[in-house]
Amino acid sequence: MSQLLYGVAYYDEYMPSDRLHQDVELMQAAGINVVRIAESTWSTHEPQPGVFDFASVDRVLDAMHHAGIRVIVGTPTYAVPTWLARAHPEVLVVTPQGPRPYGARQNMDITSPAYRFYAERIIRQLIGHVCDHPAVIGYQADNETKHYHTSGPNVQLLFVKYVHDIFGSLDDLNARFGLDYWSNRINSWEDFPSAVGTINASLGAEFAKFQRRLVTEFLAWQVAIINEYKRPGQFVMQNFDLEWRGYSYGVQPDVDHFAAAAAFDIAGIDIYHPSQHDLTGIEIAFGGDLARSLKRASYQVVETQAQGFAHWVPFPGQLRLQAFSHLASGANMVAYWHWHSIHNSFETYWKGLLSHDFAPNPVYEEARMIGADFARLSAHLSNLRKPNKVAMLVSNEALTGIEQFRMLSFKRPYNDVVRLMYDQLYRMNVACDIVGPSSEHLEDYTLLIIPALYAAPDSLLEQLNAFVRDGGHAVYTFKSGFADEYLKVRAVPQPGIISEACGVSYSLFVEPKQVALRGDPFGVGAEHNSVEAWIELLTPTTAEALASYDHPHWGRYAAITRNRYGAGTATYIGCMTSAAIMARVLEQAVRNAGLWGADQELSFPLITRWGINDAGKSVHYYFNYCDDPQSFRYPHEDGTELLSDALIRQDDVRAIDPWGVVIVEEE
Amino acid sequence: MSQLLYGVAYYDEYMPSDRLHQDVELMQAAGINVVRIAESTWSTHEPQPGVFDFASVDRVLDAMHHAGIRVIVGTPTYAVPTWLARAHPEVLVVTPQGPRPYGARQNMDITSPAYRFYAERIIRQLIGHVCDHPAVIGYQADNETKHYHTSGPNVQLLFVKYVHDIFGSLDDLNARFGLDYWSNRINSWEDFPSAVGTINASLGAEFAKFQRRLVTEFLAWQVAIINEYKRPGQFVMQNFDLEWRGYSYGVQPDVDHFAAAAAFDIAGIDIYHPSQHDLTGIEIAFGGDLARSLKRASYQVVETQAQGFAHWVPFPGQLRLQAFSHLASGANMVAYWHWHSIHNSFETYWKGLLSHDFAPNPVYEEARMIGADFARLSAHLSNLRKPNKVAMLVSNEALTGIEQFRMLSFKRPYNDVVRLMYDQLYRMNVACDIVGPSSEHLEDYTLLIIPALYAAPDSLLEQLNAFVRDGGHAVYTFKSGFADEYLKVRAVPQPGIISEACGVSYSLFVEPKQVALRGDPFGVGAEHNSVEAWIELLTPTTAEALASYDHPHWGRYAAITRNRYGAGTATYIGCMTSAAIMARVLEQAVRNAGLWGADQELSFPLITRWGINDAGKSVHYYFNYCDDPQSFRYPHEDGTELLSDALIRQDDVRAIDPWGVVIVEEE
Amino acid sequence: MSQLLYGVAYYDEYMPSDRLHQDVELMQAAGINVVRIAESTWSTHEPQPGVFDFASVDRVLDAMHHAGIRVIVGTPTYAVPTWLARAHPEVLVVTPQGPRPYGARQNMDITSPAYRFYAERIIRQLIGHVCDHPAVIGYQADNETKHYHTSGPNVQLLFVKYVHDIFGSLDDLNARFGLDYWSNRINSWEDFPSAVGTINASLGAEFAKFQRRLVTEFLAWQVAIINEYKRPGQFVMQNFDLEWRGYSYGVQPDVDHFAAAAAFDIAGIDIYHPSQHDLTGIEIAFGGDLARSLKRASYQVVETQAQGFAHWVPFPGQLRLQAFSHLASGANMVAYWHWHSIHNSFETYWKGLLSHDFAPNPVYEEARMIGADFARLSAHLSNLRKPNKVAMLVSNEALTGIEQFRMLSFKRPYNDVVRLMYDQLYRMNVACDIVGPSSEHLEDYTLLIIPALYAAPDSLLEQLNAFVRDGGHAVYTFKSGFADEYLKVRAVPQPGIISEACGVSYSLFVEPKQVALRGDPFGVGAEHNSVEAWIELLTPTTAEALASYDHPHWGRYAAITRNRYGAGTATYIGCMTSAAIMARVLEQAVRNAGLWGADQELSFPLITRWGINDAGKSVHYYFNYCDDPQSFRYPHEDGTELLSDALIRQDDVRAIDPWGVVIVEEE
Repeated sequence: MSQLLYGVAYYDEYMPSDRLHQDVELMQAAGINVVRIAESTWSTHEPQPGVFDFASVDRVLDAMHHAGIRVIVGTPTYAVPTWLARAHPEVLVVTPQGPRPYGARQNMDITSPAYRFYAERIIRQLIGHVCDHPAVIGYQADNETKHYHTSGPNVQLLFVKYVHDIFGSLDDLNARFGLDYWSNRINSWEDFPSAVGTINASLGAEFAKFQRRLVTEFLAWQVAIINEYKRPGQFVMQNFDLEWRGYSYGVQPDVDHFAAAAAFDIAGIDIYHPSQHDLTGIEIAFGGDLARSLKRASYQVVETQAQGFAHWVPFPGQLRLQAFSHLASGANMVAYWHWHSIHNSFETYWKGLLSHDFAPNPVYEEARMIGADFARLSAHLSNLRKPNKVAMLVSNEALTGIEQFRMLSFKRPYNDVVRLMYDQLYRMNVACDIVGPSSEHLEDYTLLIIPALYAAPDSLLEQLNAFVRDGGHAVYTFKSGFADEYLKVRAVPQPGIISEACGVSYSLFVEPKQVALRGDPFGVGAEHNSVEAWIELLTPTTAEALASYDHPHWGRYAAITRNRYGAGTATYIGCMTSAAIMARVLEQAVRNAGLWGADQELSFPLITRWGINDAGKSVHYYFNYCDDPQSFRYPHEDGTELLSDALIRQDDVRAIDPWGVVIVEEE
Repeated sequence: MSQLLYGVAYYDEYMPSDRLHQDVELMQAAGINVVRIAESTWSTHEPQPGVFDFASVDRVLDAMHHAGIRVIVGTPTYAVPTWLARAHPEVLVVTPQGPRPYGARQNMDITSPAYRFYAERIIRQLIGHVCDHPAVIGYQADNETKHYHTSGPNVQLLFVKYVHDIFGSLDDLNARFGLDYWSNRINSWEDFPSAVGTINASLGAEFAKFQRRLVTEFLAWQVAIINEYKRPGQFVMQNFDLEWRGYSYGVQPDVDHFAAAAAFDIAGIDIYHPSQHDLTGIEIAFGGDLARSLKRASYQVVETQAQGFAHWVPFPGQLRLQAFSHLASGANMVAYWHWHSIHNSFETYWKGLLSHDFAPNPVYEEARMIGADFARLSAHLSNLRKPNKVAMLVSNEALTGIEQFRMLSFKRPYNDVVRLMYDQLYRMNVACDIVGPSSEHLEDYTLLIIPALYAAPDSLLEQLNAFVRDGGHAVYTFKSGFADEYLKVRAVPQPGIISEACGVSYSLFVEPKQVALRGDPFGVGAEHNSVEAWIELLTPTTAEALASYDHPHWGRYAAITRNRYGAGTATYIGCMTSAAIMARVLEQAVRNAGLWGADQELSFPLITRWGINDAGKSVHYYFNYCDDPQSFRYPHEDGTELLSDALIRQDDVRAIDPWGVVIVEEE
Repeated sequence: MSQLLYGVAYYDEYMPSDRLHQDVELMQAAGINVVRIAESTWSTHEPQPGVFDFASVDRVLDAMHHAGIRVIVGTPTYAVPTWLARAHPEVLVVTPQGPRPYGARQNMDITSPAYRFYAERIIRQLIGHVCDHPAVIGYQADNETKHYHTSGPNVQLLFVKYVHDIFGSLDDLNARFGLDYWSNRINSWEDFPSAVGTINASLGAEFAKFQRRLVTEFLAWQVAIINEYKRPGQFVMQNFDLEWRGYSYGVQPDVDHFAAAAAFDIAGIDIYHPSQHDLTGIEIAFGGDLARSLKRASYQVVETQAQGFAHWVPFPGQLRLQAFSHLASGANMVAYWHWHSIHNSFETYWKGLLSHDFAPNPVYEEARMIGADFARLSAHLSNLRKPNKVAMLVSNEALTGIEQFRMLSFKRPYNDVVRLMYDQLYRMNVACDIVGPSSEHLEDYTLLIIPALYAAPDSLLEQLNAFVRDGGHAVYTFKSGFADEYLKVRAVPQPGIISEACGVSYSLFVEPKQVALRGDPFGVGAEHNSVEAWIELLTPTTAEALASYDHPHWGRYAAITRNRYGAGTATYIGCMTSAAIMARVLEQAVRNAGLWGADQELSFPLITRWGINDAGKSVHYYFNYCDDPQSFRYPHEDGTELLSDALIRQDDVRAIDPWGVVIVEEE
């Protein structure tokens, strides 16, 4: 697929009147060349058990094909029909809060045999029905799949079998999980208590890992079925979603994206983000960097906002800025959720490209411009490769580990640390990949950014030590290396195994009140010279102290250290710093790794992203993420500004509009 | 009944010792001429199933009759006896949060046949027992009845039958409610899912409407039973209550007061309100305007606070101010909940006229003054008619519609908009009636105030267009006209049908951050020139823009418009304005409608209310709702100040004490 | 036991590796001479029902004995094994929120016969196994026992029998509890509703009292079993804990400590408190004063923090300050929870003396100093007697009574009033005992401090009147005397029976907004001259008004009064004052009682505590509870400063370090 895809989700089934042909005409006018259908409407396609009706699918496929618009067909399994829940109430998920009622989507037990039986049948019926249609270019398996906290007795039994497979012996389990504590020891398999009520963090975290594995297995099962029907040239993808804080914020707690992505041909992702004055592009970049890293290839933005919520309606220019920002991260598709605004039910105020009146509006008009640009520049902008030398190492296990102890320990969620680091990299235009703890490609990078790697096996930490020893650079925060993969705290001076590379040791940690770094070592000014939430009282062994605490009693301890180890360096940040301090520490690490270049001379709100296109040419994107006009000096080889088709020479000073975009392809 | 009633709720059953005769003496001394009894003490009157004991009723009836105090007897059905809940646990309501335990009042399923059987028996026994007693002037059916969120399987079955009766065909239902969304489509009646878990706002809102209908039906059933016993001259009423925010705030979500009032002879209402420095009289006026409008006649304040909570204890003068404020809205009865302060159980700190020591206290002493005034002035002040030309149109369906989408849309409750408008009318002394969407009297009014009429059938909106076309004036806020009666958003440019009268159109709406109106068009000053929560980006078609947004990107859209349409005008307010802006918009509308008069030259804290008494004379009340003395120029015909029995002439300047009252009857 | 005990909780079962001998060596080096074991590890000691394994107990006993460290053995009954919950799910407590799952500790129904059967067996097995071991000096019965809100059907049946035993007749019950209200009247025993759903405060409070009685009975049952095995010289204690607000705050709502302590030989208590800049010593003093008062003898601090949470890690010097502060209250043992920091499960971040790495650290090093001082000074500092003349009267029934009405009345919890008074006494170095409503020693005191004695029988209030009449001094706050022991409000002018001694009367009370005392009668300055939450409008009968309200309408009422009654005086505080006002009122009361002495010339942060040691000598502790050096003039007889072994003479001015300690034994 060398063509950029510009798409929408389309629900003929939701329309208040038959308007398929008007919609197709409006899509064509806007340059929409792909639609995603069918993933939400099982009850329409199978109105009664075993009775199938794909009329709305067929008519959309035909109309789209006629208009040259491609179609991605989703399996409708994330929202179950009334008849299924009525006949087999056990398909509804049992969570720690009890059984979920019928009504919402994503309320099923993904392990339920009854659910699996009916899901398999509708998948085979639907995909078998459409796979030969020429409009179909690919499939989506389910939708934003997660485990929905399934934890009923059947899931508990599966979990016990899973634990049995891992540990074999209860003695080993009791020891690794520390189950003697509070009389939780399990001395016979039939006594195994439900993980739901447990206060044992090791057991709780292992159950969370098991639940994520259920998602991986469920998706692989769906993909395997679809693959039986998939024709050459067609693909299968999923629309992964991120931790949700009213928008896509960070690492998804409930899915191991790295593992789950293995079954798919292409990585897809849903990205929703703040807008208007709060639009920064960070979520676009973060989600994009993650999705691109999953398959180490271009990816699809399966859903992003058009109008969205009332607080998301884009200012003029923002929709376009967003679209090109996705491309700049390596996306080959940008698709809106969704085409029209829904007239009933739940997401009535999650608006599409069209308002409820179906008439062109300012947002639609801006999409027309984007569609035209995408079509014209597709050959230049698709399949962007990004050979990054920086990677951020994220971990579901670390996230869960931090979460398990949030009440009594560091009170902030893991993703706060991830974003504290990622955001500063983004703002200084340092591009990065995002890798997981099982990555086989760490050696491809020069600099690893490692937020709060709380839980990790010895092998990973030893691999990271070797990475530094062999010339790599690493930046760790507090809490890294603290516990093993089963959340057992290491019974050695902290930060445990990585102490060797970091050259630092501590045994006390404190919650600070109004603590600063002594002497403002990073020159960020009094307002920004602060740490919060967590400070480790570090004693360098071989490291140099970059900062210490301004505190009457903790002043003798280091706060941030840097250590030469073998051919590399390891920086250890022992406290939750302000954004300004983090920016300076990361800047030093980037410079130290020899990665500071011309792009880093620009900074937010002027964002630049870079890649290499199919023609092997470098493409430089410049984005103005603010409401004021900006200008910048273009530092790279002479090239062509693609949107204006104008020449641009090295050192030219170039203006860029509020929320504006400049794209340069080097000659 | 031409006599003003001044009353208390009286519970002989709760007394720590026999003190009926002391109480009667204290009541007589205070001018109390009516008591309300029996509505809370089923377990006393029927100690075991089928065993009846009305001794406490009889002794109170006799004692009151002997003292010339009238009695209203309530059916005791809102609080069920222990034996009933024990023998028939199914009488306890099942809510979306599960079954309610025994203990509180208002915890029953009002549809339960077991409950109905026992309720009917105690009603017949009690009312049959008392109906011939000469002290009895009327009856109260149940108490502050609502549906208590009853939603168990039996209620769900009734709801399905109700839906079946409305729609007949599931295809129609699926289309009107948009049930294809998220696979909620119902293809066979036996698949109908519980409304409890639904995320479909149309289904959820219809269930809420159905629950309100259960209340109407339940009350009518009680009234029909009571009517079998009612003697000539006796009445049946209910004490409706309002949305509760720690006090009586606005439209009751769980009862359709307009429908429920039909069965009753007299409208009654319970009004509790802020006090001390926060006493404004707004709740007294709002509740009174609503109650008076229900039967288009004088009403009864069945409950209001004497001492009440610790934060309600009235300042000297306030109890009197409150009492006359009720009369000024058209009340014929003011009754306190309650006589004494309860020594046990739950409402021990919701104090009555007497404290727990039963001794006269400053609040009681003030009641004595009120009682004397009521008795002396009864002929002048009872049966006040208020021929208002302004009405506010409120709607349970709009309230529910706003609520269904509050999470993802306009985040404020409906009553915030109601009160934003009502409060400004009150403060500028514009009297109004309150009407519902089925009112047959819209043509009686010159100006209709219409807050957030989110859900309405085409017919109502067309009627409102006609109202304007025929010379009426209307003021709509944002979100009016948006959805039909089943919460389906209209698939036309907004505000849909009323666009015609309003001369305005929009398709985008935004949540504002610090947005003002450009140029402060209403001259309210920077502090007050703000809008919040919701702004619609209006484009006038035929309207003139009264205001536009001060915003870098939304500045080209109108915020508030006014349109000549036929012989009338329609004002459309596209945003949640500050109180100050709303006041000016409403002032313009009142002036434009030709309704600005001498009373509007006064404003809060100087409140004036007007009506016509049985003698056909105009009565003007003047209230000083603040802690400082005030004065005003009396603008009407010469008359008599009734409290002082002094002449007052047009243009006399009259002083009014802090929290003071002046009442003028024109000659 | 004349030796001071310095101890830790020790869990050999939790260790990641066998390190018993290293631990014992580190303990010996630190002067640890007692360990507490076994109370949390039932599942280790009885891995399957009826199979016992005390290997870890035996090896710890032997190792400790060999090292001269004594052992307290706890019964492991507060945390049940997996096999017990699996085989007998009914052992898990049913609370008003439903059944508790397996996982946490303290989740059992302490009335369950199945639980009692297994608990008795493990107690007999364990205690029988260890009782003859020479290392064992005593036993702990269960751990921080409470009722865990047990309220299932079996508990409800026990409650009905309990009520039957008290009242005999339902008529009496209905009258005392006011059950006619809202139809709650119980006319036949079989109709008795569950206390869980009740809104009747009298019923709810009686159920809470009954639940506390279950705790007393359960502990006495355990102690009786242990006593069968107890050898001469051994003791049985419990570790009582206080109301928890993230630390030990005040009176425990769920246990009647005075009643429960009767069964034990020694009172033990767990005290956790704020630290770092928030360390004041108040919780150490409050918990100590309570524990000492329970048995009127020295007590044991069974648990207190070493490192504790990240916000508790002590500044240098604080651990030592804390240890001596415990002794200064009369403790004979100070024991840390716990020795090492746990590597798994739930309390991983509730750190012990050692961090997870088991290496000496600054906190451990400070403990070494303490251990050496304890050993050296044991004969001087153990068995401190404190012949206080001031006592604070606290009441579970008052606490529950305040709580039952918190929603609609005084919105602060009882312990806020307790601490408002206690904290000021502490800060002015007025030592006090803490007594309960059934105390037989009131006559030992000169001054009684009585916070919010909301619920009390006539007999107690009459006893308190007599106390004053006979020359005692009493300080009551608002709400005292209001209700009887069944929460029935007294139907007389308030404060009821104590009006006689207090010479004051009121019938109105108000929630104040920004109310001050008129004329700042206590000279505390505008910032501190405020009252909040609750004001009673007092009218003195025979009392003098010490303060009245600065309010336009309540200004004529008294706020605080003092009355001569017989040979004594009673102060009545009718409002929730600022801390500064309370300090001045209490100062006046202390002076008035003739109890103001040299110690009261010092004040926080300089704290002094006094007692008499086994040699009959006065011991004076001086503590500097702040981060700055202080000095004071020593006012007592010449003596020896024990830590430095230096002479100190009367009127010597003595410096004291930040967080420092000075201990003087008079000659």
